Amino acid sequence: MSFLQISSNVQKMKQLESSALVRTTNKIQNELRQGVVKPYKEVINVCWGDPHMAGVKPLSFVRQVLAACLYPQLLEGDKLLVDVKQRAQRLLKTCVGGSVGSYTSTAGIPEIAQRVSEFIQKRDGGVPSYPENIYISPGSQWSLAKILNILVNPEASPRTGVLTPVPCHITTVLSITGMGAVAIPYHLNEEQGWTLQVEELQRALEAAKGLCNPVALYVINPGNPAGHVQSRKSMEEVIHFVSEKKLFLLADEVYQDCVYGENVEFFSYKRVLAELGPPLSDTVELASFHSASKGFMGECGLRAGYVELVNVDPAVMKHIYTFFSTDSCAPVLGQIALEVMVNPPQPGDPSYLIYNKETQHIKTTLKQNARRIFEVINNLQDFSCQPVEGAFAFPRIYLPPKAIQRAKEAGMQPDTYYCTRLLEEAGVLLSPGCEFGQKEGTYHIRLFIMTPQDIMVELLKRLSTFHVKFIKEFS
Amino acid sequence: MSFLQISSNVQKMKQLESSALVRTTNKIQNELRQGVVKPYKEVINVCWGDPHMAGVKPLSFVRQVLAACLYPQLLEGDKLLVDVKQRAQRLLKTCVGGSVGSYTSTAGIPEIAQRVSEFIQKRDGGVPSYPENIYISPGSQWSLAKILNILVNPEASPRTGVLTPVPCHITTVLSITGMGAVAIPYHLNEEQGWTLQVEELQRALEAAKGLCNPVALYVINPGNPAGHVQSRKSMEEVIHFVSEKKLFLLADEVYQDCVYGENVEFFSYKRVLAELGPPLSDTVELASFHSASKGFMGECGLRAGYVELVNVDPAVMKHIYTFFSTDSCAPVLGQIALEVMVNPPQPGDPSYLIYNKETQHIKTTLKQNARRIFEVINNLQDFSCQPVEGAFAFPRIYLPPKAIQRAKEAGMQPDTYYCTRLLEEAGVLLSPGCEFGQKEGTYHIRLFIMTPQDIMVELLKRLSTFHVKFIKEFS
Repeated sequence: MSFLQISSNVQKMKQLESSALVRTTNKIQNELRQGVVKPYKEVINVCWGDPHMAGVKPLSFVRQVLAACLYPQLLEGDKLLVDVKQRAQRLLKTCVGGSVGSYTSTAGIPEIAQRVSEFIQKRDGGVPSYPENIYISPGSQWSLAKILNILVNPEASPRTGVLTPVPCHITTVLSITGMGAVAIPYHLNEEQGWTLQVEELQRALEAAKGLCNPVALYVINPGNPAGHVQSRKSMEEVIHFVSEKKLFLLADEVYQDCVYGENVEFFSYKRVLAELGPPLSDTVELASFHSASKGFMGECGLRAGYVELVNVDPAVMKHIYTFFSTDSCAPVLGQIALEVMVNPPQPGDPSYLIYNKETQHIKTTLKQNARRIFEVINNLQDFSCQPVEGAFAFPRIYLPPKAIQRAKEAGMQPDTYYCTRLLEEAGVLLSPGCEFGQKEGTYHIRLFIMTPQDIMVELLKRLSTFHVKFIKEFS
Repeated sequence: MSFLQISSNVQKMKQLESSALVRTTNKIQNELRQGVVKPYKEVINVCWGDPHMAGVKPLSFVRQVLAACLYPQLLEGDKLLVDVKQRAQRLLKTCVGGSVGSYTSTAGIPEIAQRVSEFIQKRDGGVPSYPENIYISPGSQWSLAKILNILVNPEASPRTGVLTPVPCHITTVLSITGMGAVAIPYHLNEEQGWTLQVEELQRALEAAKGLCNPVALYVINPGNPAGHVQSRKSMEEVIHFVSEKKLFLLADEVYQDCVYGENVEFFSYKRVLAELGPPLSDTVELASFHSASKGFMGECGLRAGYVELVNVDPAVMKHIYTFFSTDSCAPVLGQIALEVMVNPPQPGDPSYLIYNKETQHIKTTLKQNARRIFEVINNLQDFSCQPVEGAFAFPRIYLPPKAIQRAKEAGMQPDTYYCTRLLEEAGVLLSPGCEFGQKEGTYHIRLFIMTPQDIMVELLKRLSTFHVKFIKEFS
């Protein structure tokens, strides 16, 4: 099998910008272990949206329930609180053979899908949710790829198109193009705080005419990497737009718990759609994605998420079921973590005090970190940050022409060059904006908010010092 | 999105035969719980290759290490043996942030890939294995689909073809056709104990001429569902064949630990290829798949496996890396289970005695079950079973014409009808042969070997009684 014989869709894929950064990080960490002296003792890694990697501690209740499910002998001792034991026993009963080592239905353990639908209904102020519309999966990106596989006709001419935000992580774009579809870029408006504007959707759709057949709109709210939380009004406009253009709405809502702007509230697309009433509420097709990886739990390594489908044609639903059935189930421990996420300890439960303390601590940390990032970055020259409302911060760097020239000479994107120097000289690993797409001639970095406060303070200190030095060097 | 607008590849997918059987099982189990009286107290479920579902107990060492990694407070107590603690501590160090909740590299934790390569090298009598050729994944079927995605050009005309055994589970065939390729069927020879014969591969390839462009041969050894273990000589013939026809060899070897025939031994394709020497050993491209789901551990629910790539063009390897990078990592706890599978306790280790006792017990059980199935079934009229050498048994049922007629009236495949009646009347859930493909006019059932012995005895008793009654009814 030579390179030219492999799938043309795979041939087109380019290596991720971050690959080289990760290799450099590994090299630096090895050197540090071997005692090489650097201006820092360890690398702060906030390249991924990975809370535990960034130093956040797992929630005790989650880990205790999971450990007891894995090794039920723990239920016999006196180390675990009664509600931990009861939860583990109840969840083990939902596993065939009483073991988390058994397969489950491909859509997930039915009792857990039931809990997820109860959570959604409560979150959405009573808008009904049905477990049969919920598919538990190894993660939101996995569910998104599966739904796209159903919407995208790889043989169609012109190709199937999916409206995709800029910025948006390159892996999503690769996933779309990898299945033979076209990602139609629409730009979020940085100057207006990374808002999604319907006029821009109109423009993008117009530009795609004749080039592809648009079937879906992909939105990320709260935004990754943009960190914007959509207003209800903006969401209503988007719903009218997809209805008019007959587009399937793909709503990535995995950062719904990570909202820390003042006077900012998360609404799900499902709720806004339902509250718009008929005919919209009965017709607009929607897939909403959520995950156990983000939010307070941050269990990325367990791999679990879900998608809820709304208003999808029953004939299509049948095929979705069949198509999902060709895969194995989501990891059972991930499914169990998802259950705990949607059904946490309640006031009065023995584990509530510690659970509440741990999650409140994370909430305070997020708010403080977001405030700090906004203040520190906007106080620096040639650096600006829009209000950080949720998920990430995606500040803009105004790189001097000489720095851009130097990056070109090094064969790198300008913001990758900035991140490489930041990594080598200050021991901070961030993602460069080019990994997400950005308006031509603009440069950004993505900053993950969910780190312990002392780490964020140290990170911002290192970033500030480096930035001032870097800008000076090229001025 | 109406049915006609969805991907034509997805449209073509038919619902699995077993779906209705699983629904019936759920109905029966509900009735049993509500106290409805039936000739059995519970359903014996051996529909999947799922040891824990079939009643096998998890291995203590595996579960202890996993629980300690999840909830490191357990390391402080005195309940766990010292080698469990040391293993957990060592593995936690390989997780970024010291948490199994962090993402790992998409190819898996490097230290675990290293352990996997050491295991392969030892298994294969010293044939070298390199960790950079190993990709840890959420399971072997997942890896297979990824590799196929690289080999299959969805836009190619004629379509890409993959030689696929009959019998073979329908989900693999659906996965191939779902990505726009053609599964070219080649039949295993039941009369010769389900052997793979090169003349049949020749015939299948000849028959595909003009219809598709064959690029790969998929083999399952030990066979699922056929239960045959390939001889070295047969494997050598297959290697010569793929070399001559320039086919990529996809070797599904997930049942390598489940071999119980007399004088039968498992050899990996990698070893046989290496020992054939150049030019074959340097040129034949091979992907070998293995999994933590099968074998003695049977941890299906944790979702982990790996693929080792041999002789793949470096330019293609680079694209494989990029393509795999668009997905998240395999579940970290699955990866850890994989580490324990390839690196179990050794003589002298504190946990060795119990580990050895548990695995020896499973080995004995497998041998006894295989012997029992062979004897019981071959003693029944209109039922025959080839020697059960590994993995599964796939006995043939000679259905009376009247039973076939009755199945048609019920709108069912004849062996699905047999399995439905068996389920309802005797409380045994098996997979019908039509779910795997079989020579026209022949009917089979698939029997999973890995159950506790008492369950197998009970299963065979129920099956025998039912079979005799069923055949009599339609004679």
